[in-house]
Amino acid sequence: MQLAMINDEMLPLDKLDSAYLDRGLYFGDGVYEVVRSYDSRIFALDEHLARFANSLAGIEINDVNIEQIRKKVTAAFETAKIHNARIYFHVTRGSAPRDHNWDDHIKPNFFLTITELPDFAGLKQKGIAVLTCPDLRWKKCWIKSLNLLPNILARHAAAAKGCDEAILVDDTGLITEGSGSSFFAVSGRTLRTAPLTANILPSITRGYAIKAAENLSLQVIEKSLTPDDAKNADELFLTVTTKDIIPVIKFDDKIIGNSQPGTFTQNLITEFLKFTRTNTKT
Amino acid sequence: MQLAMINDEMLPLDKLDSAYLDRGLYFGDGVYEVVRSYDSRIFALDEHLARFANSLAGIEINDVNIEQIRKKVTAAFETAKIHNARIYFHVTRGSAPRDHNWDDHIKPNFFLTITELPDFAGLKQKGIAVLTCPDLRWKKCWIKSLNLLPNILARHAAAAKGCDEAILVDDTGLITEGSGSSFFAVSGRTLRTAPLTANILPSITRGYAIKAAENLSLQVIEKSLTPDDAKNADELFLTVTTKDIIPVIKFDDKIIGNSQPGTFTQNLITEFLKFTRTNTKT
Repeated sequence: MQLAMINDEMLPLDKLDSAYLDRGLYFGDGVYEVVRSYDSRIFALDEHLARFANSLAGIEINDVNIEQIRKKVTAAFETAKIHNARIYFHVTRGSAPRDHNWDDHIKPNFFLTITELPDFAGLKQKGIAVLTCPDLRWKKCWIKSLNLLPNILARHAAAAKGCDEAILVDDTGLITEGSGSSFFAVSGRTLRTAPLTANILPSITRGYAIKAAENLSLQVIEKSLTPDDAKNADELFLTVTTKDIIPVIKFDDKIIGNSQPGTFTQNLITEFLKFTRTNTKT
Repeated sequence: MQLAMINDEMLPLDKLDSAYLDRGLYFGDGVYEVVRSYDSRIFALDEHLARFANSLAGIEINDVNIEQIRKKVTAAFETAKIHNARIYFHVTRGSAPRDHNWDDHIKPNFFLTITELPDFAGLKQKGIAVLTCPDLRWKKCWIKSLNLLPNILARHAAAAKGCDEAILVDDTGLITEGSGSSFFAVSGRTLRTAPLTANILPSITRGYAIKAAENLSLQVIEKSLTPDDAKNADELFLTVTTKDIIPVIKFDDKIIGNSQPGTFTQNLITEFLKFTRTNTKT
């Protein structure tokens, strides 16, 4: 008898719920997005959906209608009625008996959660500490996939040293990005961050942070930094969808800006907030 | 209201089955093994469990008792009563609301399936075609993790060109291994395969293939090959747990050994089979 076992319970294989046959589980064979709302409006949904379409194409999941995804996301958001919501969704290739190869007729699975975001005002006022870790990831990090093991291991290593984020450093000694964020340095009136060619995610929030910097007449340079460059910067910050801009006040053992979020970083946070009041979907 | 959506169905978040909160699904945060039985006896279970323990340690899942895993595997195998069984099992870090970091008290999830293996005699007589693909994987391939997206994309690319396996080639132009197998070449009386230092899985079947080669007085060299080395070899073959040794008769556009499995490969298949009659668990 072909069978399955979930923890201590055995069951006939054909009684297995399709959740246990999801290729997302066996292979990380899926892609995801996280969007958030500000004051009951989803921010930058178009950009997130465009990136989601690129991720789907990147792993050859071809039968997903992005407008259907948009409808599901907005329907769920309208049902949830949460002002400041974190909306996570993924599409996996589908459920099937485990096999590296797949049948092109397999039906993709959609999954979403909507949860309430905490208030990050305290975090923005206080800033965070980060720890550098080797970047062990695969070579297509522009795809926002469910293969996140190197990311979570780096994040856990950072947390074990009392840091909130891991900053990944590649084989050539250059910073790529955070384990779940983009990384920026301010020196004088120049904002610097890794170029999109550096095997990083094309972060939506990164794009808006760059726009905010331009609005503040900062010069923006897309050129990778070394950890030493970061330690010698005037200000450091991260961008991440759920929290937008978060000041970094400690980089490995180096205190940045007297342990206080920098002036430009604070101005960027304010400038960024303006986008959230205009570029939104009700 | 915090909520979830599975395909088209919305439900309150707290009604979500824990299968949908598995970190294996969100992050590929788990490790797996595949073992098989020959004539009702599991082959090389000790070695697979030892590797599984290394994989668990590699991703810092620390609270799994390997003897408990052995008991589950053997209990399921005894219940299934399948002579030539494929036993897949994985452990994920556990189920929790999605967060890169994890709580050290999270309880790991165990999952297993036992299915009947087809007869691979025809495949062994006929041999297979393989296609080279870039090796895009992360830097810790000695961990048998659920992050297999680069593997399955390579396998699908191979299948699209009528090939049964993808042979991965790293940035330096060297073959590492197959997308789900180890790769070997025979030239004269020498067997050559990549060393375990080449960011490959420490394959159990690879180890037994090397022992079989030594029994046949072949010289074994653990040194990576280029695709040109492979094309110029007398014989090529793969090893994989479920099928042990499979002859390769076409490598990209190059026909190997007049499209026939080689003599040494056939002898290795016979030699390998002897191990399955002795090193087994009843």
